[in-house]
Amino acid sequence: MLTFPDSVQIYEVGPRDGLQNEPAPVPTDVKVEFVNRLTAAGLPYIEVSSFVHPRWIPQLADAEDVLTRISRAEGVRYAALVPNQRGLERAREVELADVAVFVSSSETHNQKNLNRSIDESLENIADVMAGLPDGAWTRGYVSMVFGCPYEGEIPVGDVIRVATRLLELGVDQISLGDTVGYGSPRDVRDRMADIATAVPLDKVALHFHDTRGTALANIVAGLDAGVRIYDGAVGGLGGCPYAPGASGNVATEDLVQMLHAMGIETGVDLDALVDAAAFIETHLKKQLPGRYLRAVRGACEV
Amino acid sequence: MLTFPDSVQIYEVGPRDGLQNEPAPVPTDVKVEFVNRLTAAGLPYIEVSSFVHPRWIPQLADAEDVLTRISRAEGVRYAALVPNQRGLERAREVELADVAVFVSSSETHNQKNLNRSIDESLENIADVMAGLPDGAWTRGYVSMVFGCPYEGEIPVGDVIRVATRLLELGVDQISLGDTVGYGSPRDVRDRMADIATAVPLDKVALHFHDTRGTALANIVAGLDAGVRIYDGAVGGLGGCPYAPGASGNVATEDLVQMLHAMGIETGVDLDALVDAAAFIETHLKKQLPGRYLRAVRGACEV
Repeated sequence: MLTFPDSVQIYEVGPRDGLQNEPAPVPTDVKVEFVNRLTAAGLPYIEVSSFVHPRWIPQLADAEDVLTRISRAEGVRYAALVPNQRGLERAREVELADVAVFVSSSETHNQKNLNRSIDESLENIADVMAGLPDGAWTRGYVSMVFGCPYEGEIPVGDVIRVATRLLELGVDQISLGDTVGYGSPRDVRDRMADIATAVPLDKVALHFHDTRGTALANIVAGLDAGVRIYDGAVGGLGGCPYAPGASGNVATEDLVQMLHAMGIETGVDLDALVDAAAFIETHLKKQLPGRYLRAVRGACEV
Repeated sequence: MLTFPDSVQIYEVGPRDGLQNEPAPVPTDVKVEFVNRLTAAGLPYIEVSSFVHPRWIPQLADAEDVLTRISRAEGVRYAALVPNQRGLERAREVELADVAVFVSSSETHNQKNLNRSIDESLENIADVMAGLPDGAWTRGYVSMVFGCPYEGEIPVGDVIRVATRLLELGVDQISLGDTVGYGSPRDVRDRMADIATAVPLDKVALHFHDTRGTALANIVAGLDAGVRIYDGAVGGLGGCPYAPGASGNVATEDLVQMLHAMGIETGVDLDALVDAAAFIETHLKKQLPGRYLRAVRGACEV
């Protein structure tokens, strides 16, 4: 018999994980308005941008401007990715209090994506953690947790080793990512049962990409496994620009709609979330993959 | 802890439930080739067309031609909807052995859609059943099982009453439909627990529309509840023509991909299923909502 929690926290990663994948940079004014609309939806966490070098992600080169110009609501974490010392300097200049760091659970992916080994990335994260101001809150992303296009299945022990090391380094929360949407509900059930033996689930978030349409199905398995924090990107932002319609993150409004229909509280205003999704969709001038956005915008005969 | 069966049966409804919703009729040659490609994928059931009066569904006016021209594989059911006596005459002319009948669990929807009460529809189905040749196999669709746009929540007792009556009339299998995609995994869990007390689950199929993106999530709940037959339409055919991108049925290839990734056998050739989906998508000249089709057609950087 499926079990569900009474409430869930929704973490919005669209401005960072979504917009970094858009072929053309989004104007700073639009990003600021987008984040402000997400704030209006009552989300507890909004990942605003990244301090990755603009050479690698020019789409987010205006991280400082966006972070300084957004309207902040009390109790909301406005975070950015901090990949290294240079990123840390930039983060300190804008007094960033909420920081995200990242590493892969796949050695090959980590090498290809970050040009260093997993252990080198963990040492690098230790340096970043040491340089953060007192009271900073940190989220650690672990990617390829449910499979890797280079290595196939990743031993769950590798995931646990990376996640526990991040917690040892003082990371406050771990986001386990199905970066390429390979995971199935059975994988989530089985992996989370193993991971729960080593990592406290109240420190774990799940981050599903909907590449194969299984994100919400995987979240049902995550809920049954006891995970109560889920990442999303409004509209399903984050699809790769080379495959029209290819899905990125699970659409936050699809997730919130499902949770509310299940009687699970999120504290999120679904209408305001749809408004934010519609706003960015209109700006991007392309149909985003989120389902609920289509359902509410196009009335249909039964 | 989630539970799953070892194997599942996939029923393909795309040629009927999908193509009946296309604004322009699909040429008969294309329908025949489409059904032949679905046969090549190893599906046990293909709903080919409907004997609803062409005045209501001109898209399927060529039901006889398609049913007589397709290449049939042994052991595969090639069915069509039979709504009334006139439809029964047409079905008999082509010696249709596998028949689908339909009724709503929502009184208002049944009135609006079929212009009669649920009980009148059940009497009408009794007449159709009485007129079927010996050895005919019959599937009974019950719509709006997980919510109705006119009545909201449908009492589960109404669903059970309609389903049990269909079984009394000799219907071999019941397909419970989330016609408008309102269902949540909690609804599926709770409703199936009640329905299982009155209807043998080996006679039950679940039919989810993906209007809000929850179809695969609902199927996870259905699997956990013990249901082992699921309907799909390749590509996610069946979206309403008035809402571009609005989803219809769950995409059969998305469902099969998820089930195979879970180690659940279907007997379906996923590549051949994708081929059939790509074939009809190319003909319809529009991007279908299925996710896996996009994932396999558009390679993407990690």
